[in-house]
Amino acid sequence: MNKDFAVIGLGRFGGSICRELSKEGMHVLAIDSDEERINEYKNIAYHTVLADSTDEDALKQIGISNFDHVVVAIGENIQASILTAVILTDMGVNKITVKAQNDYHEKILNKIGVHQVVHPERDMGKRLAHNFISSNILDYLELSDDHSIVEVKAGEKMIGKSLIELDIRANFGCNIVAIKKGHDINVSPSAEQALQEGDVLIVIGADKDITRFERELVID
Amino acid sequence: MNKDFAVIGLGRFGGSICRELSKEGMHVLAIDSDEERINEYKNIAYHTVLADSTDEDALKQIGISNFDHVVVAIGENIQASILTAVILTDMGVNKITVKAQNDYHEKILNKIGVHQVVHPERDMGKRLAHNFISSNILDYLELSDDHSIVEVKAGEKMIGKSLIELDIRANFGCNIVAIKKGHDINVSPSAEQALQEGDVLIVIGADKDITRFERELVID
Ligand SMILES: Nc1ncnc2c1ncn2[C@@H]1O[C@H](COP(=O)(O)OP(=O)(O)OP(=O)(O)O)[C@@H](O)[C@H]1O
Ligand SMILES: Nc1ncnc2c1ncn2[C@@H]1O[C@H](COP(=O)(O)OP(=O)(O)OP(=O)(O)O)[C@@H](O)[C@H]1O
Ligand SMILES: [Ca+2]
Ligand SMILES: [Ca+2]
Ligand SMILES: [Ca+2]
Ligand SMILES: [Ca+2]
Repeated sequence: MNKDFAVIGLGRFGGSICRELSKEGMHVLAIDSDEERINEYKNIAYHTVLADSTDEDALKQIGISNFDHVVVAIGENIQASILTAVILTDMGVNKITVKAQNDYHEKILNKIGVHQVVHPERDMGKRLAHNFISSNILDYLELSDDHSIVEVKAGEKMIGKSLIELDIRANFGCNIVAIKKGHDINVSPSAEQALQEGDVLIVIGADKDITRFERELVID
Repeated sequence: MNKDFAVIGLGRFGGSICRELSKEGMHVLAIDSDEERINEYKNIAYHTVLADSTDEDALKQIGISNFDHVVVAIGENIQASILTAVILTDMGVNKITVKAQNDYHEKILNKIGVHQVVHPERDMGKRLAHNFISSNILDYLELSDDHSIVEVKAGEKMIGKSLIELDIRANFGCNIVAIKKGHDINVSPSAEQALQEGDVLIVIGADKDITRFERELVID
């Protein structure tokens, strides 16, 4: 069963949510008070409405309370974000997610009874900071407190060696689940083929094992 | 070996990078043209400088070319971001990461020779959109334009069935790389054991295959 989404505010964050949900086949109603933005999303969203979300009557007319999930992605104008959130909670919208600008903004949103508060810039900053510490560590997904999946570039010590020779499973206790070569991803990588410069390994394991693997083989 | 970082622009994104790197024990020089921002980061960053990064002499005086990695997190003012990037590439800074506002901005930054261009709002929007589609889709890691790893809760249709019975590989073309049961993660999950409510599967594959898998088995 597909959900009906509404996204209020089509900046970089809200716009990206609208695009991705639409790409996944979801019906998204895109709302913005800026006509240019609305025009930009006419061919992307299922439906677009030019409206100021602080106008309760406008939201009622849209039938916003019938949507399964409403995302408020208004940034700079914290007052408009808060007022919109108040209207949505008053109307009893099933799920409300709001982007916060700062901790103060978040506190108010939680008081109002918003279901989810997100900090995209802050969270992405945190995520990237970990990438920056080693340039061979490209991305990571935390599976639990002590297990992760990491995407790493083959370090100098790995180039020219096969997975059999490196025997990462036996030596470090973590598993290679895929190898990326340019745009190709091989989810059943050959054990004999030598790794080449630029190859990217997707590794799953306990954080302590991954850290040891990274220290010994990944970080040049 | 610890790297020396400089972060130019202490908005939500740059500020978060500065905080996280500092938390991880890295030395960060925090630069902003806004005195309030600088005061806010005095106790967080290793060193702070009030400066306009479009002023080449100011960057020279700071000795910016000696830093291992310089992050430009100026947002709204695209011109200032580009000018700063030009100065940094001219000075031969070892690694330059710049936050882009849009595709046009990114194109210019790539032309200038910036090493990494990031889109925090866009990327976080994409990421969250997947979470929104189903409360059973917990997280995901994009491996390429068309391959991902997703973390999903076993849907109703999967409970009580074994991996052999479900044969996800044959039916959907994607691979189960691990199963999470509470705090335990099994990276070589049994093919015969029946899945239980609350089990979390880590799945790798092409986006289109994962989407089909999610539609048929994950989203209740
Ligand atoms: N009251 C409102 N009703 C509808 N849309 C609004 C309202 N206020 C602002 N918006 C829209 O919200 C969008 C995002 O706002 P803004 O650009 O201030 O946020 P931002 O945090 O800088 O965004 P991002 O960082 O995601 O690009 C804009 O397109 C703006 O037109
Ligand atoms: N030329 C400059 N030199 C130094 N700092 C600058 C310069 N121009 C802007 N900044 C600083 O960069 C920071 C971020 O800029 P801005 O707030 O426009 O970006 P933003 O995209 O809205 O940020 P975010 O979304 O990360 O909060 C601000 O603290 C601002 O003072
Ligand atoms: Ca962890
Ligand atoms: Ca902004
Ligand atoms: Ca922003
Ligand atoms: Ca993708």
